[in-house]
Amino acid sequence: MNTDRIEAFSDGVFAIAITLLILEIKVPNADNLASGLLGLWPSYLAYAISFIVIGAIWINHHTMFDRIVRADHRLLLLNTAHLMFIAFLPFPTAVLAEALHQSQGQTTAAAFYGGTLTVVGLLVTAMWLHAANDPKLLSPLLTQAEAKRISYRYLMGPIGYLAATLLAFISHWISISIFVALNVYFLWSRRENSGTDQGLDSQ
Amino acid sequence: MNTDRIEAFSDGVFAIAITLLILEIKVPNADNLASGLLGLWPSYLAYAISFIVIGAIWINHHTMFDRIVRADHRLLLLNTAHLMFIAFLPFPTAVLAEALHQSQGQTTAAAFYGGTLTVVGLLVTAMWLHAANDPKLLSPLLTQAEAKRISYRYLMGPIGYLAATLLAFISHWISISIFVALNVYFLWSRRENSGTDQGLDSQ
Amino acid sequence: MNTDRIEAFSDGVFAIAITLLILEIKVPNADNLASGLLGLWPSYLAYAISFIVIGAIWINHHTMFDRIVRADHRLLLLNTAHLMFIAFLPFPTAVLAEALHQSQGQTTAAAFYGGTLTVVGLLVTAMWLHAANDPKLLSPLLTQAEAKRISYRYLMGPIGYLAATLLAFISHWISISIFVALNVYFLWSRRENSGTDQGLDSQ
Amino acid sequence: MNTDRIEAFSDGVFAIAITLLILEIKVPNADNLASGLLGLWPSYLAYAISFIVIGAIWINHHTMFDRIVRADHRLLLLNTAHLMFIAFLPFPTAVLAEALHQSQGQTTAAAFYGGTLTVVGLLVTAMWLHAANDPKLLSPLLTQAEAKRISYRYLMGPIGYLAATLLAFISHWISISIFVALNVYFLWSRRENSGTDQGLDSQ
Repeated sequence: MNTDRIEAFSDGVFAIAITLLILEIKVPNADNLASGLLGLWPSYLAYAISFIVIGAIWINHHTMFDRIVRADHRLLLLNTAHLMFIAFLPFPTAVLAEALHQSQGQTTAAAFYGGTLTVVGLLVTAMWLHAANDPKLLSPLLTQAEAKRISYRYLMGPIGYLAATLLAFISHWISISIFVALNVYFLWSRRENSGTDQGLDSQ
Repeated sequence: MNTDRIEAFSDGVFAIAITLLILEIKVPNADNLASGLLGLWPSYLAYAISFIVIGAIWINHHTMFDRIVRADHRLLLLNTAHLMFIAFLPFPTAVLAEALHQSQGQTTAAAFYGGTLTVVGLLVTAMWLHAANDPKLLSPLLTQAEAKRISYRYLMGPIGYLAATLLAFISHWISISIFVALNVYFLWSRRENSGTDQGLDSQ
Repeated sequence: MNTDRIEAFSDGVFAIAITLLILEIKVPNADNLASGLLGLWPSYLAYAISFIVIGAIWINHHTMFDRIVRADHRLLLLNTAHLMFIAFLPFPTAVLAEALHQSQGQTTAAAFYGGTLTVVGLLVTAMWLHAANDPKLLSPLLTQAEAKRISYRYLMGPIGYLAATLLAFISHWISISIFVALNVYFLWSRRENSGTDQGLDSQ
Repeated sequence: MNTDRIEAFSDGVFAIAITLLILEIKVPNADNLASGLLGLWPSYLAYAISFIVIGAIWINHHTMFDRIVRADHRLLLLNTAHLMFIAFLPFPTAVLAEALHQSQGQTTAAAFYGGTLTVVGLLVTAMWLHAANDPKLLSPLLTQAEAKRISYRYLMGPIGYLAATLLAFISHWISISIFVALNVYFLWSRRENSGTDQGLDSQ
């Protein structure tokens, strides 16, 4: 099975999940609209975090499927499971926004958010490791050494998210900062390394 | 009419229906957020079941349209009717989650859910049988014998769903188990059989 | 400008509008779930009508853009206006369901629904007439005589919808029946006529 | 990286954001449905404005990506940030509708809406300026002089939106008129100028 339709379907789920995030923000009372809008900062923050997270995972998904040229059944199943947690993200986003708004339950909310991201990270890593071990699935432009180097990078995701989840029990702000920092790093590091497999990226 | 745009439109409906499922889960009260989040297990369960169901039907839809290369008007109508019930699924999902949450009406909710799946299964089977009887619609790579064998497999869907629906009157957990088991089986059996029509699948 | 991206964007709006319809149906109270689910028949009816309507308009949109091969600016604007009323349809659908449920305001609701369809029909007709008068936009496979015959058929849409809207003031059931009948007719008549421009449809 | 998937993902977000707008309009009480539906004019107005705005930005996005043939990492990041504010638009739309409905907070609501559009305009302009300064990203059919002329036109967006935002403190109707007028102008001016780079547009 080639990967075109998997990518198209995944893109659909990513685009919808990222756009549904806004539905969780409710119009404040018009009595004092300016302060009402300012008071929604936790919602804006949660919206921005999840937009960055889903955006980074989407870009990463594209990069991965530039390197994976064929899908077998297991990859399809892993991708579906992975989308199940991507489509779930608007819920922990809303939970986080509400907890920040009420200054209550922030630790639980940050750990819940981080736990969801940890599962996403584990599934992304599992997809890559499965493909990396099967030369039929990988692009012929990719050397074994490059595939290995990329595998180590993928392991950083779930480990980083798990650490951030545990650190929520010290402070939810630490967790939130790591969620954002990790995704900015993923975007940036991809850029740094883009010279290495430029031949592939420029297909 | 070729099937590209039907598939693209169907993929859109599948992707949206599967992603809308999360909107049915409401943020719990922050008083005791951890127990509130745990108490939502019926919603998580219903979300996961429907994600697996829609995901399996989507994969099956792809497999079917790898074998169907042209669409006539009747196929278009059947596909539209089929999408009407796919897009309906978030509602019985929410009904099932609410009934499990309230420990009330679970039989009705499971039967309602199963009834919807039975109609989906009947329409999928009708689409395939219609195409299988018209060589102009089928891929030339498919032999008559293979088409027949596949027809029998498609009949299992609505029969299995109908049985699961009726069994809800004994226990809703039996129904729910069959919904999940059937879809896991569809995914697995497709894998087992993938050798037979490998020539087609590897187009 | 070729029409590929207009069609893709329009397909997206059609697919989302048709899938959002389900969000208007709320889970009934679990006290007596079976009667609660049965009591939602107005919502199911409104859902089915709008699914058929949007489905038929979508299929018609495809047929039209099989015949239109290039888009100019005015066509783009008309298409955007047309999508504005397609995306609006979930609202009159919800209004109609609520009025049927409360046995109050059905005339207004049916006229509101019909008015929206009338505008959709006018914009569809305007798109076709604009394209039909500009040979640069039409497929070279289409003769002038065929284009003219098709133009007459497009006029039926807004006229039929307007008549149905006005008849709501006699009975909303007459309106609703015409909404459904017209769209079933559009699907059927297309089939009847498909022999005439078969050369085009089989592109 | 070529721009196909960026465009497809962006189209998805545009199509979803534009279609979600309708979810903000709630069914009025059926006691006096006709006057209830008329009383929703602020919601219809806000819906129409945002549909025109998102539609115009979508068309403009297409025109821009007809001229941009390759994307680097920075363009991808700018586009993601730009989509974050496009997907945000249903919220200021709902805020504006509510303020008009309650005749309270209209200045704040119009300024909030205009502020969001200003950020969208800044990001669109930043995307173009970044691409215009890198010949590797631009279509070879575009001359330097044309790229420069287009750059000036892009600057009009954020400047116009900022002016409209500030004018909300005199009257929110002035702001709203400018939001609509600017987008109609963008559509029209593109048409006027389409002769100049016709070679490109007719690719």
